[in-house]
Amino acid sequence: MTIQIHGPAMSPNVGRVLITLFEKGVEDFQLLNVDLSKGEHKSPEFLKNQPFGQVPYIVDGDVVLYESRAIARTIATKYADQGTPLYGTTLTEKALVEQWLEVEAQNYSPPNSALVWNTVFAPMFGMTGDEGVVAAQTPKLESVLDVYEKRLSESKYLAGDFFSLADLAHIPGSFILIKMGQKGALYDSRPHVKAWVDSILSRPSTQKWAKLAGFPQ
Amino acid sequence: MTIQIHGPAMSPNVGRVLITLFEKGVEDFQLLNVDLSKGEHKSPEFLKNQPFGQVPYIVDGDVVLYESRAIARTIATKYADQGTPLYGTTLTEKALVEQWLEVEAQNYSPPNSALVWNTVFAPMFGMTGDEGVVAAQTPKLESVLDVYEKRLSESKYLAGDFFSLADLAHIPGSFILIKMGQKGALYDSRPHVKAWVDSILSRPSTQKWAKLAGFPQ
Ligand SMILES: N[C@@H](CCC(=O)N[C@@H](CS)C(=O)NCC(=O)O)C(=O)O
Ligand SMILES: N[C@@H](CCC(=O)N[C@@H](CS)C(=O)NCC(=O)O)C(=O)O
Repeated sequence: MTIQIHGPAMSPNVGRVLITLFEKGVEDFQLLNVDLSKGEHKSPEFLKNQPFGQVPYIVDGDVVLYESRAIARTIATKYADQGTPLYGTTLTEKALVEQWLEVEAQNYSPPNSALVWNTVFAPMFGMTGDEGVVAAQTPKLESVLDVYEKRLSESKYLAGDFFSLADLAHIPGSFILIKMGQKGALYDSRPHVKAWVDSILSRPSTQKWAKLAGFPQ
Repeated sequence: MTIQIHGPAMSPNVGRVLITLFEKGVEDFQLLNVDLSKGEHKSPEFLKNQPFGQVPYIVDGDVVLYESRAIARTIATKYADQGTPLYGTTLTEKALVEQWLEVEAQNYSPPNSALVWNTVFAPMFGMTGDEGVVAAQTPKLESVLDVYEKRLSESKYLAGDFFSLADLAHIPGSFILIKMGQKGALYDSRPHVKAWVDSILSRPSTQKWAKLAGFPQ
C-alpha cells in the first residue's frame, strides 16, 4: 500500500518523516506538495486531515496520521524488522530513545526552528528575519548544545552507542541551519557535537531527503 | 525494585508520571521532593541526573530517566501486562495515541502551562501572574479546545473509544486549571470537552495524585 505524505519536502517536519522512511527502506510512498505560501494548509480540505493546519500528515490505507514525531515512531514500529533499527534493542535503550526524542521536541526544536525560519526560510521567501528573535534564541540553542556536548562525550549517539530515532529527529533542522544558514559555528565549536552532527548529516537517508527537498548536498 | 521519583507532586510534569504509575498499579515507588523555591533543581547534584534543571526525573535500578512523557511511555510499555492498557490494542490505535500525545505536548501544554503558572501557581507562591500572558494564551487554549470538541464528538476519548496515555497526559494541567484556577468555563462551554474532562478527572488515579499533591478533590 503506497503511503501518501502531504507536505513540502523542505519542511523540517516533513523531512523527519521522509528520513524515517528512507532509514526503514520504505520507498513505496508518494509525496504530495502542499503550498504553504498559498495557504493550502489552512483550506477546509486540509483541515479535515490536520485540524491544526500544519504539515505533514500521512495517509496509509484508511489511516490518516499527523504530528511528525508520532508518524516517525509509527513507521519505526511498523517496520521494526527492516532497515535500520531505530529504538535500540532493550527496554532501557528504548526508554533513552524516548527521552532524547522528547528533548529534541521540547528543548532543541524551539530555538532551532526559530533560527531556521529567521535566518534561512524568511530570506529564501523574500522576507526579513527578525534579528531580535535570532539574538534571543541563539544562546538558548547554545545551552542545549552544551548539554549535548557533555552527553556525546559519553556515548557516540544521544541514546547510547547506536543511531536511533532520537538522532534522526534532529537531522532536518540541523542540516538546514548548518548547511544553509550561518550557524555552523555553534556546532563546530563543540567537538563531540561536531562529530555527531557530521555523522548524522552524512547518512544516505539525509542525502536522499536533501535531494528531494532541492537542497545543496 | 522501588522506583524513585524526584520532584514535587504538585508539578504537572511529576503528576503525569505519578498518574501513569497509579493506572498501572505500580505502588512500589518513593517520591522525593525537590524544592524548586530553593533552586534545588539547579544544583550540581540535580543537574547530573536532569541536565536541563527541570523536574521530574526517576531512578529505576541503575537507569536514570527524565522527560515526563518519555517516563510515562516507558512505564506504560514496561507494565503493559498489568493495570489499565494505555496504548489501545492495535498498531493503528497506538499510532493515534502517539499522535494525541504529541498534540498534548505541542499544542495543548504550552497555553495550558502558561495559564496554570500565571493564574494558579504564581498567586499560590505570593507572586503576581502576568495578565498579558493570560490574555494571549487564553484564545490559544480555546482554539485547541475547539479541535478537541470536534474530535470528542466522534470518539469518547482522544485516540478512540478507549482511555489512553494521550488522555492521561492531559490530567494534571487540566485538573489544576479547572479545579484551582478560574478557567473551568473554557472546558464547560464545550459539551464534549466537558464530558471528557469530567471523565478523566474523576478517575481514581487522578484522585490519588491530587491527594499526594495536597490539592482539594
Ligand atoms: N508539531 C508539528 C509541527 C508541524 C509544523 O510546525 N509544520 C510547519 C512547517 S515545518 C507548518 O505547517 N507551519 C505552518 C503553520 O504553522 O501555519 C509536527 O511535528 O508535525
Ligand atoms: N519537558 C519536561 C518539562 C519539565 C518542566 O518544565 N518542569 C517544571 C515544573 S512543572 C520545572 O522544573 N520548572 C523549573 C524550571 O524550568 O526551571 C518534562 O515533561 O519533564
